[in-house]
Order: sequence, then structure tokens, then C-alpha cells
Amino acid sequence: MTQPKPRKLHLAAFLTGAGSNVAAWRHKDTPSDGPVNLKLNIELAQIAEQAKFDFAFIADSAYITKSSTPYFLSRFEPLTILSALAAVTSKLGLVGTFTTSFSEPFTTARQLASLDKLSGGRAGWNAVTSALEDVAKNYGQEKLHEHAVRYKIAAEYIELLKGLWDSWEDDAFVRDKEKGIYVDFDKLHTLDHKGEFFSVKGPLNMEPSPQGRPIVFQAGASDAGKELAAKEADAIFSNSSDPEIARAFYKDVKQRAAAYGRKPEEILIFPAITPIIGATEEEAQRKYEQTSAYVDIDLAIKYLSRFFSFHDFTQYPLDEPLPDLGDLGKDSFKSTAEGFKRMAKEENLTLRQLALRAATPKGNFIGTAVQIADKMQHLFETEAVDGFIVYGYVQPEGLRDFAEQVVPILQERGLFRTEYEGETLREHLELPYPVNRYTKERVNQHEQQIDPVLSHPSGG
Amino acid sequence: MTQPKPRKLHLAAFLTGAGSNVAAWRHKDTPSDGPVNLKLNIELAQIAEQAKFDFAFIADSAYITKSSTPYFLSRFEPLTILSALAAVTSKLGLVGTFTTSFSEPFTTARQLASLDKLSGGRAGWNAVTSALEDVAKNYGQEKLHEHAVRYKIAAEYIELLKGLWDSWEDDAFVRDKEKGIYVDFDKLHTLDHKGEFFSVKGPLNMEPSPQGRPIVFQAGASDAGKELAAKEADAIFSNSSDPEIARAFYKDVKQRAAAYGRKPEEILIFPAITPIIGATEEEAQRKYEQTSAYVDIDLAIKYLSRFFSFHDFTQYPLDEPLPDLGDLGKDSFKSTAEGFKRMAKEENLTLRQLALRAATPKGNFIGTAVQIADKMQHLFETEAVDGFIVYGYVQPEGLRDFAEQVVPILQERGLFRTEYEGETLREHLELPYPVNRYTKERVNQHEQQIDPVLSHPSGG
Repeated sequence: MTQPKPRKLHLAAFLTGAGSNVAAWRHKDTPSDGPVNLKLNIELAQIAEQAKFDFAFIADSAYITKSSTPYFLSRFEPLTILSALAAVTSKLGLVGTFTTSFSEPFTTARQLASLDKLSGGRAGWNAVTSALEDVAKNYGQEKLHEHAVRYKIAAEYIELLKGLWDSWEDDAFVRDKEKGIYVDFDKLHTLDHKGEFFSVKGPLNMEPSPQGRPIVFQAGASDAGKELAAKEADAIFSNSSDPEIARAFYKDVKQRAAAYGRKPEEILIFPAITPIIGATEEEAQRKYEQTSAYVDIDLAIKYLSRFFSFHDFTQYPLDEPLPDLGDLGKDSFKSTAEGFKRMAKEENLTLRQLALRAATPKGNFIGTAVQIADKMQHLFETEAVDGFIVYGYVQPEGLRDFAEQVVPILQERGLFRTEYEGETLREHLELPYPVNRYTKERVNQHEQQIDPVLSHPSGG
Repeated sequence: MTQPKPRKLHLAAFLTGAGSNVAAWRHKDTPSDGPVNLKLNIELAQIAEQAKFDFAFIADSAYITKSSTPYFLSRFEPLTILSALAAVTSKLGLVGTFTTSFSEPFTTARQLASLDKLSGGRAGWNAVTSALEDVAKNYGQEKLHEHAVRYKIAAEYIELLKGLWDSWEDDAFVRDKEKGIYVDFDKLHTLDHKGEFFSVKGPLNMEPSPQGRPIVFQAGASDAGKELAAKEADAIFSNSSDPEIARAFYKDVKQRAAAYGRKPEEILIFPAITPIIGATEEEAQRKYEQTSAYVDIDLAIKYLSRFFSFHDFTQYPLDEPLPDLGDLGKDSFKSTAEGFKRMAKEENLTLRQLALRAATPKGNFIGTAVQIADKMQHLFETEAVDGFIVYGYVQPEGLRDFAEQVVPILQERGLFRTEYEGETLREHLELPYPVNRYTKERVNQHEQQIDPVLSHPSGG
């Protein structure tokens, strides 16, 4: 019997603009226009690639108000910045957030496949359902579908995209100049999808990339989100690096995936962490406090309110325990909103305390490089995570410190690669190559024709 | 009285994959996968930038069948390839084709504004209405809207995008680290568009680029297309470099623009040309014939059929005059289809002759570099064009020959720049900067408050 392959830790860089702190843009060492600064984004991607990270990741949303905090007001749209980064990197995966609620599946399929092809097989898609109520008004609708419906739409959407991405079998493009054969049209397939929410004919006018199709990420942590991910996603952005919560989540998702016939290593789990590194614990703590000092309570409350579709929190007293908010946020960022409500209740936090906690996330990764590496190793080895998305507290310093100080420790311990071993994001993540559905059909038919007994599971 | 500024010739490079000829991919000096080859596209963009071209341009469409010719089957989606090129060029404008028929205006506004911002003000949008009947089936619809409705939708769409692009006034982003002021919210505006076809609230989560907003191109040559362009577009892709047709078109469009209060230099006209350059006329002719030899009649008929929404031409005899096709193509590529029908009738062409003519376009630009420069100069000086889109017959050779041999002649004659004088596409094209509508309102109100007489047209 063969041993299971040893698990390997994966690392990603969060392209955050100025940094994780809502007021990070005020830090002297970061450009004030981080979310729209191409140079900063290139620098972050190149730091990540030099440190052999698996991928860079960018979040997204499409609704702002005067209650929005700086980062959200003006920032690169994911496809444009990731495509630009594709031209100046060669190994780094490029993962972007695209909604399934307000877009044409054919266009999303095409744009992602095009990014995948031009990057040589390095694209990933974080499929989200959009969570801000008023975002619907930017797309001709009065309000968001409720949470459960959004996830039903997302499930059909993801299946549909995988179908369009199978339009061309891997070897369809012959391109034989001598014989004048450009393509084998027998390997072109028309999906003709007619579902509950979408009707899309195909075929897609883009061939497969070297990784077959983009890697699918999912970020929902609600039950509906986990179930969708277990069925469809190659990887999940989870929302806690607390050891107990993370381990329970990890186990839950891998079990759900098993119910769909998937192996544990076919769905990877990534929480975000915000390392703040000092030569001593005290220095790290000081860095945290210096940056947090930029955050005033107004900004913090604005930041908090976004997770509740910009609910007006200014109506509550600042220094009294947060009142019971009922099911507020249930159709927005459901699991994050619930997390904040639970935290406030369990720790009896005032509005001021909760808002500051949300706006200046401290996390468990403040300390020396060795302390941080220890915590990461522990989470990885106790099956709480498969990797981490590193969110710089101030950029580019946050990511650079991590790459220069923590990554070498992880490498010395044999946890993280010292060189890229593959070319594509799929290879970095050691995910199985998706065999085209029509190729599979053809092969199955062929095998049955040759020997119907041998190809049968009970055969031989 | 001040003299009008001398007109200046503009040049653009068509990113075509292998080249203008449908079988160009078979040429020994071009990569066989041109339309999805990042390296080739970067090379073309860099040739264009070194030659001080105004912009690179990429066409688009989103429907293929087994009757599609090689170029269309698998090619980069415009936003992805232009964004990639933005990272490896610094002056060249980047113009892409995006439909107004099957997309969310908010998303198109955002993606174009993001490309514009990350390129430092070099983006352009070729607004098209989509012309292939079955493309609708990729977007949940049974068929295309008829031609006139498509143009009504396009008109509302373009106005809507200009509105979203005014969401933030130019100086809205303060980003004062010391004072902690990121933005002046008085300069954020919510469009709240409710029109016949679209309802979009805004504001856009992207600030203006250094050129204010992307340059708007339009390519329709029908009456509806010209009228839309005259009102909304900064530039037009026209479809003839025949001197008489081009001059009539030029005059027509500039007159239509004048009716909207626009100056002639505010709307620029670009036909595409396919220069084939030889040391002698004979050598150029030989080059044309060598490449055309790759085209067989089946491929040529497929190519022709696309302009008629893949009408089945194989039902007609090859070597008899083309039968009367009635209004076939009227809701597709209307003016191109009419052009082919007119050409067949006037010259009494057989189907074979017409198809080969369409698939191996010869144009008027075969000859020595001096002959080609002469023709360009003549068209420019007789007000038939404001510039040209250069379509390489085989890439990258076609564009490189032009850049190395024809551009220096145009420069010596003082017709074309020898250095970039500005940074943005708007500056290259010498188009007026679009003052934000809310800034304009504010200035007008302010002037009236200061001196209602002076600000009145008859004042003073």
C-alpha cells in the first residue's frame, strides 16, 4: 500500500492596498493611494513570487456610500489588476473575486479563461454571491436575493462555468501549418445550458489553459457556503485562525467534501492572518499600537456597519453594551455579522470596543518571526488549515517582513517550498487536473468498445 | 484672430493575432497561436510604442460556430490582454471593444475605469452593439434586438457610463495623511440613472484617471451608427480607405457632430489599412500573393458568411454570379454586409470571387514605403481621415515593416510625432479634457453668485 503524500503548506498574499488596518493608508511607509497604485501592487506580487508564494488574492465588492471606509472607495477591479500582474510575474497564481449574482456567466467564463490562458494557467476565481443589500441597485434590481437563493444561483453559475470551460478538449487546437489544420472540430462542444436561473448556449471562444481551467475558490462560511464549497470549490477562504474554530471548520468541510466523493486534499482551506513581526514581542506590540492609533471611533463604526449592509450604528450609545441586533446582517455578510454579534455578547463588549476590535484586527500573529512560524506550523499540523492568506498590516512592509523573516523559517522546517516545482497554480496547490467531460466520455466509450468486461468496475 | 491648430496624423496598431489574412497563421514567420499568444501581443504593443503610435486596438465578439475561421475560435478577451499590456508599456493608448448589448453597464464602467486608472489614463472603449444573431443565446436571449433598438440601447448605455465616470470629481481624493482626510465626500455623486433600458444607482467605486475618463470609440457605419458616434464618440473606426467613400464619410460625420455643437477636431476618423511593403512594387505584390495562397475557397466562404450571421453560402453555385440576397445581414454587420452585396452586384462577381476578395483583402496599400506614405498623406490632407489603424498582413512582420519603413517617412514630412508630447491617450489624440458635470455645475453656480451679469453669455 502506498503512503499518502505528505501535506504541504500553501501561502498566499492578500493585495490589500495600504494594509489590513482601516487607517493603514496614513502610515508613513505606505503610498496613500494603495488600492489604485499599480506600482505597489506589482511590488507586492513580486515579493510574493520571490518568496515562492502559491498565489496573490484580491477581494472585491461593487457598492459604496459615504459610510464606506477608504479602502473601498476607489480600488482596482480584480480582472484588470490581475491581468496587469500576469504580465510582470511568471509563476505566481492570480486569484480574483467575481460575483455570481450580477454578471453574465458567459462573460465571466471568458474573462477568467482569458486571464488563465494569458498567465499560462495561473488564474483562480473566488466565487462570491455579493452581500451588500444596495449593490443590487447598481444592477437594475431593487434588492439582493435572500441568502439561500443567492447560493442556489451560485451553484448553478459555477457548474455552468465549468461546462463552458469544457467547450474545447485539451488537444482540440492542432495548429499544423503544413497541413493547414488549425483545429479539430470534433473536439469542440456546445454546452446548451438551460437551468433554473440561466440559459447559455456556448461554446466558449477560449481554449483551455495549461491548468485546464481556473481554480475555484469559495469564501462563504455559512452552512450554504460550506455545502457549495464542499461540492464545487478547489479551495476555501475561511474566516478564523482560532485553533478550535478552525479545526472544527476544517473537519466539517472535509467531511462534507467526502460526501461528494472528494478526497481531503482536493479542497484546501485558507484563513487570512495578519502577521505583525518584531525583533521582540514588545516591538511587535508597539507596531500594532502605532498603526491602530490612526483609527478613530467614527471610522471604526463605519467599518463595522459595512458587514451589516451599512446599518446605522450611530443610534446606539458608544459606551454601553451593544444591544441585541436580532437577525440583522442575515442576508448580508451572514457569518461575519454573526461572528461580531457573538463576540459582543460573549465578551460583553460596548459598541466602541467592538468597532475598534473590528477595525484594528489584532489576531494571533503578533510576535517574533519564530513565534509566528510556530503558530502557523501548529495550525497546519493539527489539521486546522492547509495554508494561509497573508494580510500585511501595512503594505508593502507587512508582506516583505513576512517574506524575509517567516518564510525562511517555514522553509528550514521543510514545511514550505524553496523553489516552484510546477508552472501553474493547480500544480502549486497539487490539485488534480480536471479531465474534460467530453474527453472522459470518449475514453469511457472507447474502453467499453475494446473490452466491456475490463472497463466495468467489477471486471477482471 | 487665432489660426486653427494644424491637424496631426494619428496612428494605431490593430492587435490581430496572426494577421489580416484569414490564413495568416500558416505563414512561417508568425506564431501559429497568435490570438492567444501573450508574447506576440506584447511585441506588437512595444513595436507600436517605440514608433510613437497613439494606441493599440483590439476587436471582439462572443459567438463561434464550426463555420468560424481560425482567428475567432480562441482569442484573448479585450480587458485581460489590454490590462496585461498596460503593465509593459507606458505611453501607448489601449483601446478595446466591449458590447452594449449583453453586459452590466456598472461592470463595464468599472472595468474600463480601472484599466484607465492603472494605465495612467490610456484606456479607450470601442462601444459596439454586437452583430451576430446567435450571440444572444450566450446571454439568455433568443435573438439579437433589431438594429435600431440596439443603437437606442447603446446611446443610453454610453450616456450612463459617462455619468458613472463622473461619480467622483477630479480633486475628490485628498489623501492627506497628516490631517487624516482621505476624501472630500462633497465631491462624490450618485447618478441614480433610471432610463428606458437601464436602472443603475452608482456611485462608481473608481476615481477618474489622469485623462478624466476613457476615450469613446464607435465603429458602426450605418446611419444609426454615425448618428450615435456624432453625438457620443471621440473617435470612429470607419470601414473604407477608398478616397471618395472616405471623404464623403468624413464630411458626413463631422457635419453630424457639428449639429451637436461639436468641433471637427473633437471626433476623429480612423479607417483600417493593411500595408504590404516591398523594396519594389513587385516584391510587395509577391508578398501579398504568397500569403493569399494559403487561403482555400472553403475557408474564404466561411469568412464571408460571418458578416451575414453565418448564412449558408454553400447552397449557391461557386462560379456563377452571386444571387440577389435581399436584405440578408440587415440586423447583423449591416454596413459591411451591404458593402459586399454592392461590390458583388457592381462588379458582377461570382461567389468564389467575392469570398476570396473578402478573405484576402488587398486594399490600396501594397507597394513601396514611399508609395504607402504618399497615399496616407493624400487621404489625410484631403480630409478623408484623421489617422489609420494599421492592420499587419502577417504579424509581427506587417507592423514592424510599417514602423521601420513608413513611420520615418511620415515623421520626416512633419505629419507624425517623433516623440510623445503627453502621457495620456487623450493628450495623444489632442481631445478636450471632459470637465466633470458636477464640477461644471458648481463652477457655474459660483460664477453666478459672484457676478450674475459677467457669467451670462451676453454679459460684459
